[in-house]
Amino acid sequence: MPPGIVALIGRPDSGKTTLLEKLIPELNRRGYRVGTVKHHVHRFEMDREGKDTWRHKQAGARVVALSSPTGLGIIRDVDHDPAIEELIDRYYYDVDLVIAEGYKATTLPKIEIFRSETHDSPLENRDETWIAMISDRNAAPDLPNLDLADVPAIADFLVENFIDKPVPPATTLLVDGKPVPLNRFVESFIGKAVGGMTASLKGCRDAREITITIRTDQDDAEK
Amino acid sequence: MPPGIVALIGRPDSGKTTLLEKLIPELNRRGYRVGTVKHHVHRFEMDREGKDTWRHKQAGARVVALSSPTGLGIIRDVDHDPAIEELIDRYYYDVDLVIAEGYKATTLPKIEIFRSETHDSPLENRDETWIAMISDRNAAPDLPNLDLADVPAIADFLVENFIDKPVPPATTLLVDGKPVPLNRFVESFIGKAVGGMTASLKGCRDAREITITIRTDQDDAEK
Repeated sequence: MPPGIVALIGRPDSGKTTLLEKLIPELNRRGYRVGTVKHHVHRFEMDREGKDTWRHKQAGARVVALSSPTGLGIIRDVDHDPAIEELIDRYYYDVDLVIAEGYKATTLPKIEIFRSETHDSPLENRDETWIAMISDRNAAPDLPNLDLADVPAIADFLVENFIDKPVPPATTLLVDGKPVPLNRFVESFIGKAVGGMTASLKGCRDAREITITIRTDQDDAEK
Repeated sequence: MPPGIVALIGRPDSGKTTLLEKLIPELNRRGYRVGTVKHHVHRFEMDREGKDTWRHKQAGARVVALSSPTGLGIIRDVDHDPAIEELIDRYYYDVDLVIAEGYKATTLPKIEIFRSETHDSPLENRDETWIAMISDRNAAPDLPNLDLADVPAIADFLVENFIDKPVPPATTLLVDGKPVPLNRFVESFIGKAVGGMTASLKGCRDAREITITIRTDQDDAEK
């Protein structure tokens, strides 16, 4: 299922990153995986100076990656400013929600953050892509106003509007009665393999649910 | 065309990165696009502490990206140690050669770098996946030996063994007699669009080469 996408916008220093530092853990606690993307107009340095990958990139490598069992980092040249949709398809295949920062000049649905502490007024030229205001006061009477201090309510709004209702996984695995988390590949692999194994058995052809239980201790006992 | 892949291996401090700093520019000068990937067993930090993307990641984002018109940086969590083939398919779609560091325990063809200055002997347990030694002396009489100081010869070896012979592009565009570089998307788009436009014209159905020349000044004069 492709992720929901929402743009978080606001004047500089309006508190976008500070909000995300609270909002991402709140969404994670609810079981949602979040991705972020930040648009940058100029050249940037993401890697740490002096590291091998940094040196490869400086030497002219088009793509450099650092790959480990838990994380992956990639830095690459591009020939054009990628549309957010290109990024989503290629890189955000396993998240539920993408929060985009700095994509004001797109048709993405936008939520603006406005703090009266740092600015006098919200952004100008608001259009119909604005769907809510996150603020410490009711800064836009024409829009739903979310209280900047009420992170759970902001999370509720995002879940309701941008994250598809969770569907129960097609394949579940219980080990000793406890669910084992399956990634999509494994879930699909097990589902298809078991479905294939049982498809030609009598009574299984039109099965809507297949449950197999294997007891390893009995298996040993029979040997 | 998928890129060639070669693993560069060697003991710590044997000079892998230093060699790449010379080899990548040499391959670039010859018109080849190079990618590198470094395998890391432990957690790593690639982003710069305190940056927004770094803060998003710390807060629990699964994927963070920084996107600009010239470059893209992505840092993400993964659930398993990705095989190099997975990385190549998804991330190295526009390079000619991928040089992999730290992939000794794979079946990739391997080139070892050995400097007598820093070590007494090359790596142990050499097997049939070793295809050459880059060294300051003939450290492995059973393998082709490439002189560590002769970067052009090392580039020759890589091009010959890992980069497919360049094929002339299917679609070329000359503007005022000068070739305009086309990326793969544009090349394919123009090729298909022009092919489609002309396919039903008499004499074009089995065309092996279509050349269209448009002169804009004449076009204006006719108005």
